[in-house]
Amino acid sequence: MEEREKASLKSTGRILLAHGAGGKLGHQLVADEILPLFSNPILARMDDSAILEIEGFRLAFTSDSYVVDPLFFPGGDIGRLAVCGTVNDLSMGGAKPLYLSLSLILEEGFPVEDMTRILLSSRRAAGEAGVQIVTGDTKVVGKGGVDKIFLNTSGIGLIPDRRVLASGHNARSGDQVILSGYLGDHGIAVISQREGIFWGEEIHSDVAPLNGLVEDIFRASQEVHALRDPTRGGLASALNEIARQSRVGIVLEESNIPIREPVRGACELLGLDPLYVANEGKLVAIVGRDAASDILEAMRKNPLGQRAEIIGEIVENPKGKVLLKTRIGGTRVVDMLAGEPLPRIC
Amino acid sequence: MEEREKASLKSTGRILLAHGAGGKLGHQLVADEILPLFSNPILARMDDSAILEIEGFRLAFTSDSYVVDPLFFPGGDIGRLAVCGTVNDLSMGGAKPLYLSLSLILEEGFPVEDMTRILLSSRRAAGEAGVQIVTGDTKVVGKGGVDKIFLNTSGIGLIPDRRVLASGHNARSGDQVILSGYLGDHGIAVISQREGIFWGEEIHSDVAPLNGLVEDIFRASQEVHALRDPTRGGLASALNEIARQSRVGIVLEESNIPIREPVRGACELLGLDPLYVANEGKLVAIVGRDAASDILEAMRKNPLGQRAEIIGEIVENPKGKVLLKTRIGGTRVVDMLAGEPLPRIC
Repeated sequence: MEEREKASLKSTGRILLAHGAGGKLGHQLVADEILPLFSNPILARMDDSAILEIEGFRLAFTSDSYVVDPLFFPGGDIGRLAVCGTVNDLSMGGAKPLYLSLSLILEEGFPVEDMTRILLSSRRAAGEAGVQIVTGDTKVVGKGGVDKIFLNTSGIGLIPDRRVLASGHNARSGDQVILSGYLGDHGIAVISQREGIFWGEEIHSDVAPLNGLVEDIFRASQEVHALRDPTRGGLASALNEIARQSRVGIVLEESNIPIREPVRGACELLGLDPLYVANEGKLVAIVGRDAASDILEAMRKNPLGQRAEIIGEIVENPKGKVLLKTRIGGTRVVDMLAGEPLPRIC
Repeated sequence: MEEREKASLKSTGRILLAHGAGGKLGHQLVADEILPLFSNPILARMDDSAILEIEGFRLAFTSDSYVVDPLFFPGGDIGRLAVCGTVNDLSMGGAKPLYLSLSLILEEGFPVEDMTRILLSSRRAAGEAGVQIVTGDTKVVGKGGVDKIFLNTSGIGLIPDRRVLASGHNARSGDQVILSGYLGDHGIAVISQREGIFWGEEIHSDVAPLNGLVEDIFRASQEVHALRDPTRGGLASALNEIARQSRVGIVLEESNIPIREPVRGACELLGLDPLYVANEGKLVAIVGRDAASDILEAMRKNPLGQRAEIIGEIVENPKGKVLLKTRIGGTRVVDMLAGEPLPRIC
């Protein structure tokens, strides 16, 4: 399978839409075609943000482009998404997000009113997160050169002095896997809006800044080994990354994974597995076994972690694999997404 | 004129291509529609990069998107442009550029070979500048959703401890205006490639990282009041910004402004004023009168400053205006570009 995909990239020699869906093909593009060109120890860590040491201080630095379609969806819009996404990537590095850039690429003819609505939403999200937008850039491209508006946000955060660096490389056998709440809300909200599907109950994106929740976690314990926000590619991809980086196995209990009924229903009808659907206001924390209950309790006191659950644990073997104990008592491998067709979800 | 333009933005309520050309309309879009939404003292300075104070250290932070068309042009490509542009924005803040992010938005079907060529060019430029690319992001958009490939680079630089902050706000009457070399090469190289025009002699973009030249300047003297790289909108826009920010006048000597013959000829044939054409490897330094000759000498020893010239000086009045003493002995106002049609030059 993997060989076949590699072969397909080599033979067509062209970017495929599936390269952007956060699954295997995307990882392959980055791992095989991009990373080798820029090898340096900071980039090679492949966490959600780069950790820099400048004059004895540790900074987190990250950048993301946003091309979500549609621009406005229940629970959010591209502006809120761009701010929260970058705040969350910094937070997953254990940093306190401080400063953001916000760059726009606009299509000629784009309504100024919509731009303003998006920017106001960015500002509101920055306010919620307590970060400042301090620099930016505006480009305009002729009609048809860009689909309406794309955003890019980059961010800088400060990692507190004594904080132990959370990293996808630090998961250890016995660690507990905590998920902060319901899975799949963002992806299903966007897809439903794009396709014009109504599920009887409106499904809202969970897009939110998680830096407050991360601070609550670190206040409860320093035994936080890895943090990741399961965005593109969903929980399955985030955990597969950690399993590979830390060379451990991860066993999940399906019955403990919180999923809203309408999201579960929508996934069934759309033929999607909620483990692969994007989230924008959830985190998964890999924490020391003894610290798990304190951390869980702290998370549940935060409105963004009320439905947190311990959903699994880290095991020695099989290394690099994620397993799911299903409700009906079986066990299946949760692989990295192969080439799943959920483009432009963020 | 200004009122008419403001009215046109309000009445159509849509983004125009001219909003992206680095002239008055672009400034108006940013100043009237974007900045007021994010007012904070750091952003309000409107220099090429934001200056942050973190734990007692001063960092520069900047972000730019690149949508240049064509992707490859004599002397460079979008990859080199993206790295140099961000390195230069940091350098203009008086910072030593350290770390860059590099984010791609790719169109489905884009040749992997071209992507690789662009990334290798980014890497080479990063090597020249001595910066590391430490984080990034890859998005893929369906056919027609983006024109081939857009890049975004953000960067972090450290401002040395005792360095006086260069800023567009610090120009003072009597200061000298130094330009580091030939004007207009980048814009004419891109336009010629895009339109398929050959001028008898190939015109190469000047795209280059200027951080080395900036260090040479500061080694020569700390009397550096403002630094700016005249990119979109050209020298005229850069100097108009400084004149406004510092509430001073600027008088230029046309005969001292170095312009290559083929560029001058191309500008005449295309109906362009070289003062408004984009540069990507030039800087303008506003420096104390007594330091000017030392700085000029230091610049000329650097290959990127060999053709540096003192091209004018800062005067008390007229405040906020740039004047040009022409070769034939007249004086004309060099206004901000109104809505000049040079889109997608960077």
